[in-house]
Amino acid sequence: MQIEKHKVDELNHQQSNTHKRNFEYVAADVANLDEVLAKVGAFNVAIPSWALGTGGTRFGRFSGGGEPRSLEEKIEDVGVIQALNKSSNSISLHIPWDIPENAASMNALAAQLGLHFDAVNSNTFQDQKDQKLSYKFGSLHHTDKAVRQQSVEHNIQVIKYGQELNSKALSVWLSDGSNFPGQLNFRKAFQNTLESLEEIYAALPDDWKVWVEYKPYEPNFYSTTIGDWGQSYLLASKLGPKASTLVDLGHHLQGTNIEQIVSLLLMEDKLAGFHFNDSKYGDDDLTVGSINPYQLFLIFNELVEGMDAKGINHATGLGWMIDASHNVKDPIEDLLQSVQAIKIAYTQALLVDKAALVAAQQNNDVVLAQEILQQAYRTDVRALVAEASLRNGGAINPVDAYRKLKVRENLINERGLNTVATGL
Amino acid sequence: MQIEKHKVDELNHQQSNTHKRNFEYVAADVANLDEVLAKVGAFNVAIPSWALGTGGTRFGRFSGGGEPRSLEEKIEDVGVIQALNKSSNSISLHIPWDIPENAASMNALAAQLGLHFDAVNSNTFQDQKDQKLSYKFGSLHHTDKAVRQQSVEHNIQVIKYGQELNSKALSVWLSDGSNFPGQLNFRKAFQNTLESLEEIYAALPDDWKVWVEYKPYEPNFYSTTIGDWGQSYLLASKLGPKASTLVDLGHHLQGTNIEQIVSLLLMEDKLAGFHFNDSKYGDDDLTVGSINPYQLFLIFNELVEGMDAKGINHATGLGWMIDASHNVKDPIEDLLQSVQAIKIAYTQALLVDKAALVAAQQNNDVVLAQEILQQAYRTDVRALVAEASLRNGGAINPVDAYRKLKVRENLINERGLNTVATGL
Amino acid sequence: MQIEKHKVDELNHQQSNTHKRNFEYVAADVANLDEVLAKVGAFNVAIPSWALGTGGTRFGRFSGGGEPRSLEEKIEDVGVIQALNKSSNSISLHIPWDIPENAASMNALAAQLGLHFDAVNSNTFQDQKDQKLSYKFGSLHHTDKAVRQQSVEHNIQVIKYGQELNSKALSVWLSDGSNFPGQLNFRKAFQNTLESLEEIYAALPDDWKVWVEYKPYEPNFYSTTIGDWGQSYLLASKLGPKASTLVDLGHHLQGTNIEQIVSLLLMEDKLAGFHFNDSKYGDDDLTVGSINPYQLFLIFNELVEGMDAKGINHATGLGWMIDASHNVKDPIEDLLQSVQAIKIAYTQALLVDKAALVAAQQNNDVVLAQEILQQAYRTDVRALVAEASLRNGGAINPVDAYRKLKVRENLINERGLNTVATGL
Amino acid sequence: MQIEKHKVDELNHQQSNTHKRNFEYVAADVANLDEVLAKVGAFNVAIPSWALGTGGTRFGRFSGGGEPRSLEEKIEDVGVIQALNKSSNSISLHIPWDIPENAASMNALAAQLGLHFDAVNSNTFQDQKDQKLSYKFGSLHHTDKAVRQQSVEHNIQVIKYGQELNSKALSVWLSDGSNFPGQLNFRKAFQNTLESLEEIYAALPDDWKVWVEYKPYEPNFYSTTIGDWGQSYLLASKLGPKASTLVDLGHHLQGTNIEQIVSLLLMEDKLAGFHFNDSKYGDDDLTVGSINPYQLFLIFNELVEGMDAKGINHATGLGWMIDASHNVKDPIEDLLQSVQAIKIAYTQALLVDKAALVAAQQNNDVVLAQEILQQAYRTDVRALVAEASLRNGGAINPVDAYRKLKVRENLINERGLNTVATGL
Repeated sequence: MQIEKHKVDELNHQQSNTHKRNFEYVAADVANLDEVLAKVGAFNVAIPSWALGTGGTRFGRFSGGGEPRSLEEKIEDVGVIQALNKSSNSISLHIPWDIPENAASMNALAAQLGLHFDAVNSNTFQDQKDQKLSYKFGSLHHTDKAVRQQSVEHNIQVIKYGQELNSKALSVWLSDGSNFPGQLNFRKAFQNTLESLEEIYAALPDDWKVWVEYKPYEPNFYSTTIGDWGQSYLLASKLGPKASTLVDLGHHLQGTNIEQIVSLLLMEDKLAGFHFNDSKYGDDDLTVGSINPYQLFLIFNELVEGMDAKGINHATGLGWMIDASHNVKDPIEDLLQSVQAIKIAYTQALLVDKAALVAAQQNNDVVLAQEILQQAYRTDVRALVAEASLRNGGAINPVDAYRKLKVRENLINERGLNTVATGL
Repeated sequence: MQIEKHKVDELNHQQSNTHKRNFEYVAADVANLDEVLAKVGAFNVAIPSWALGTGGTRFGRFSGGGEPRSLEEKIEDVGVIQALNKSSNSISLHIPWDIPENAASMNALAAQLGLHFDAVNSNTFQDQKDQKLSYKFGSLHHTDKAVRQQSVEHNIQVIKYGQELNSKALSVWLSDGSNFPGQLNFRKAFQNTLESLEEIYAALPDDWKVWVEYKPYEPNFYSTTIGDWGQSYLLASKLGPKASTLVDLGHHLQGTNIEQIVSLLLMEDKLAGFHFNDSKYGDDDLTVGSINPYQLFLIFNELVEGMDAKGINHATGLGWMIDASHNVKDPIEDLLQSVQAIKIAYTQALLVDKAALVAAQQNNDVVLAQEILQQAYRTDVRALVAEASLRNGGAINPVDAYRKLKVRENLINERGLNTVATGL
Repeated sequence: MQIEKHKVDELNHQQSNTHKRNFEYVAADVANLDEVLAKVGAFNVAIPSWALGTGGTRFGRFSGGGEPRSLEEKIEDVGVIQALNKSSNSISLHIPWDIPENAASMNALAAQLGLHFDAVNSNTFQDQKDQKLSYKFGSLHHTDKAVRQQSVEHNIQVIKYGQELNSKALSVWLSDGSNFPGQLNFRKAFQNTLESLEEIYAALPDDWKVWVEYKPYEPNFYSTTIGDWGQSYLLASKLGPKASTLVDLGHHLQGTNIEQIVSLLLMEDKLAGFHFNDSKYGDDDLTVGSINPYQLFLIFNELVEGMDAKGINHATGLGWMIDASHNVKDPIEDLLQSVQAIKIAYTQALLVDKAALVAAQQNNDVVLAQEILQQAYRTDVRALVAEASLRNGGAINPVDAYRKLKVRENLINERGLNTVATGL
Repeated sequence: MQIEKHKVDELNHQQSNTHKRNFEYVAADVANLDEVLAKVGAFNVAIPSWALGTGGTRFGRFSGGGEPRSLEEKIEDVGVIQALNKSSNSISLHIPWDIPENAASMNALAAQLGLHFDAVNSNTFQDQKDQKLSYKFGSLHHTDKAVRQQSVEHNIQVIKYGQELNSKALSVWLSDGSNFPGQLNFRKAFQNTLESLEEIYAALPDDWKVWVEYKPYEPNFYSTTIGDWGQSYLLASKLGPKASTLVDLGHHLQGTNIEQIVSLLLMEDKLAGFHFNDSKYGDDDLTVGSINPYQLFLIFNELVEGMDAKGINHATGLGWMIDASHNVKDPIEDLLQSVQAIKIAYTQALLVDKAALVAAQQNNDVVLAQEILQQAYRTDVRALVAEASLRNGGAINPVDAYRKLKVRENLINERGLNTVATGL
């Protein structure tokens, strides 16, 4: 199913008076309005191929209807999202859940929908049918060299798939770790991981990057071999300039100041990008901005400040990707809400009065610093986000449009009620 | 496969000199030795039917070989455990994972192995094939009366299965909750749950109990409708004397003082019993005693003190059950380690010098109170546990015996390498 | 120092055009505008007497200038706050930090500033000079009856002070707990506490309430005798209808769903009210709304929904109080920011489309439920809050007015640079 | 007050039969008994000068009697500890709480008691009387160069004091951080800190080290500028080989796998040593081993394994120090319990069957790896610790001896009931 542009335009037209009023109100106070709109308009967040189906937990999965049955249908779903929000122009594949058997045809389909392929993701946390050696006790960190070798080869295979799709980065998340004290020698596990990553690094094409994710626990519950930003940073430093650290917002212990980590990784030129989601407990993989939207804003505040200080292009300098699990929501609606939340936070961060903030910080005027941040955060920027979308041909309100255009009903008609997408 | 007693005896015989030396050393300082050994010998922990296969996470499951393919084989596995440790004389069924189609035959098999059936567990957190209404948005708390009714009927059905097996308690764990702010009206969810539980309560046979479990999160990540001990207690109070609160050690926020909760529930006559496991993060379902054995001891210290104050029989007054997930261990070995850890903690708690502790507490002699507790905890009571097992015909070292008797190899021969037990 | 109304009016006048534009914009979409403004205008949050000086930690305290040197000066400071925000018309005293030696004169001073006295707070967590028995090992829970008696008498004394000031509630926070396993018998500690509270309860005047606070840790780090809402609820239930549970936002383990607790306490008629603050870790006592403003909104959403369901008057039915510590901010500015944050969250909660939310919840339309909540939350309601203040004679922007009126400079001139207020 | 050796001997004599029986029992199974006893006998843990008085919280402090009134008396108290446990042969000073006005005389006093001076600690988290600039907003990270300079000079001054005492390391703990979003520019704060540390580093004598501590929160509750091991490691790497990371056990978010951090810092040659304590929540500063003794053992297991792999001398290669706060215990008793707990954990770690563990790890035999660790941990090694103490002339049971020798009573007689030691 594809969204016809005139239908989106029609819906926008119906809402245009209200939008106009809202936009003019908020725009009046934005000094650099065109710049803000241009930046928001240029901002895109990749959609992961595994997030287009209903997610689940170890206790089960309650599938919804009309889930994509193939990679083609997943690409089409991203096409729907992109048609509505004009901020999701790429898709991030997960191998082997979504092996692009025919890369040329995938590239063509994507291009037709205004999409391209973002980072490719390897998977050595599950055993696949007919796999020779098991990942039960890890992959890149494994005590058995043969298992490490198998994992390295899988990653190199993923790079090859990615090259055919014009991806430029390999994203590595390892579940390698231990469930019990004594299970692992931490030092050897780290060194095995480093050695394995070095082999993968050596296989990277010249213009590629490798992004090293960290996570403190789950699916292992005593230790994870790349457990925090420091461990990922240490690996990335030893690997070289093509390696950097990927931040998944749900991969932190409670209380972690994520925005500080973001700031320091930027300082060290080691921030790869993000897997966006929200959480109340652990890696809950909830809709971005659904639990703690202020934290998301604070992260974007550091991003904008730090990228500007480093001269990094907001739209293209880092990797932006959703990584969420939609257990009780329509996956596409969840993704639309997530991307909106990101754009809202980004827009608010653009509105922060930096000069005033720098001065308040210099004077330790803590009250004023808070007022400056909250002035931006309290501003209802939704009309700015909508305007940026509108100017790109997207919907004023993507979720609303999705519902009014009865997309899910159409997908169910096309695909049936009992489809189950590959993924978690 | 069944363990032949003479083989256990033979292994014990080989270790008898060492055991004798260890036992005599530690026994010399135990004033009420016979009482301690009798209590430890009488202590049994139920094995859940779902814990005999390899567990997994949402990221996958790595099965081991020789997993039980039927309820009969699960009962046989519990028979193996009981033959080795003489402390696992009952099995707790989970419906519908393990529907006892022929109760008489199950009872006979169990009796032959020296086993009986403990509490039965309902399951309204997963949809079963051909189920009319979905539990995607909960069961007993559901906004739709028809779903609540279906869940109530399932629970009543489980009671019926339990009656045929001479169970005396229904254990209810609900995953009901919400993933996002706004999803639920907390008050209505609570009241729906209460109303549903009242219907189940009304269906309880005279000599039955209903045990209400609580859990703060997972599989829902914003709220759980029975989220903490206070909420479970509130429900149990409103339901009546047959209802009480079941404590699963992994179902708490980090930092919760579980032993205090145990003490207060005992005080209020509302402690049903335990699901034992250990955890570093959340409901990790790790081997009991593998992460924080001192906490386990502190819990048993409260149990012994509180049960004695209330005149509750240690062996039979509360429900004792393992609830763990064996993702990287042989399930039977994991269960054997867990039961040993429980028996060790219980024995240590029996050794606490209560009179001295009461006096130290009365005098606020905090240093001495710690010395008294740690005197018991630091004591190596493994020989006492072994002696109690020995006197009951069990193994001195159950894990060691299990390996030497090559039980898993035999099970694989019998059942094959690629069996997968029902359960999580 | 007192704020002259004409100066506030003058500042408002300077900002009136901007305010008018903002107000008209947001007001246009508020159906029940007058009702909302009336409710916001009627909403007041008490200021604690101990929060008018700079706070500190165990590592030290960095005092600011012009701190109040007496209870009179503290009352004057609250007068300043009230003159600016018209939402802080009461003061909550802490005994013995602020003993009102001459109640008549205190009442007169307060009345002159438009203030009255809210709940009185007892203190049995510190030893006072010339105190007979020490609270080192607790107070109401103490193993020594004489210490319990001393604590009870102190609380009754506090009630007497409160009666002279026309307070109507005693707020009890106990630090009673233990630092080490074994230190306490939890059951006896609970029962001693109950017995002590019963004596205090018996001394309550007919129209008084007692509010029982809970807290999981600090200053004790192993257990707290009233550690969570369940324990407070249990005590309040046993005590009777005049007793209820006070929620301090910082008194929870990480991850606690506070809004659910609020909803259930309201359901059970046991919610006394709030100590407002914000936190990232524990009882950080940071400015309300500075860390997680969405959570504050979610709490107010439950409050509005639950109070309306119970027919509780928003302004007077529960106790609203700040309890924060201002370690790096001017205390008055911190309090002004806090009260603004509360009023913003309350106003947002009033804007929630309840009928739509109820319908979405009934249909398990989780996406829509989130949209409805965030529609209210994303709305920039600051102009509504400002208008309510304006209509009551307060400032459009209290913090801004405080600075422009150079209040702190005046206080320093009056009181000096090196004053230190009593309190933490 | 000094402990007379013959009195300790006399007490030991009374317990010698029991000790002999216990020792012989446990020693029989220790293959390398002499080596173990030699290592345990050589192991010493420094006592911090600030830990000899009663500690407190922001809610107050309940002093005990006989606290040391001067540095001399603190040194004497450490002499008492050392006389009893023969494992506390050094003292770590905190400047300016304990300025050694006359270094020669302090050295002489220490030497007479068999003591020397360990690392010196600077303090830029409190303002001292007559201090020119305030540390309210930090020290080494301050936005104002002059404050940074003052802090640097203080640290250099502390080094000078240390040189006179033959210390060889400066231990730096900064409270620098922020309480509110926006207060700090994280990057600039980090860079200011680095620049300041570089100046201190430059002032280090040739044979000195600088130890950089990290802590996630308290006294700042939003961010800490050296917040985790990664940030400390980053600084230490940039500084050079004399800089390394100091681990305080209480300075971690809940759930942190500290033993993994220890292992990796050892791998990178960046582990300076430890501040030992225990905690249930945050930096609770409780008696070592009082809350989670198994974790302490796991840390020592990594230490022994990692130091052996690196050829680091257990006794002298790293810095071992207590850092606890004794709020409800006699400080000396608390310290004696802490050192015993450390020695127990160390001894258990020495008993781990390394060859078997390496093999189990290599085979991913998780069950066996746990059995191996717990075999060492479950062993009651107290008689080994006692024997090592005995051979050095210390007490079999230091806490017991302290009480029987009525040390506190003597100190109260000497110093009075109402003394208050400098420190927290």
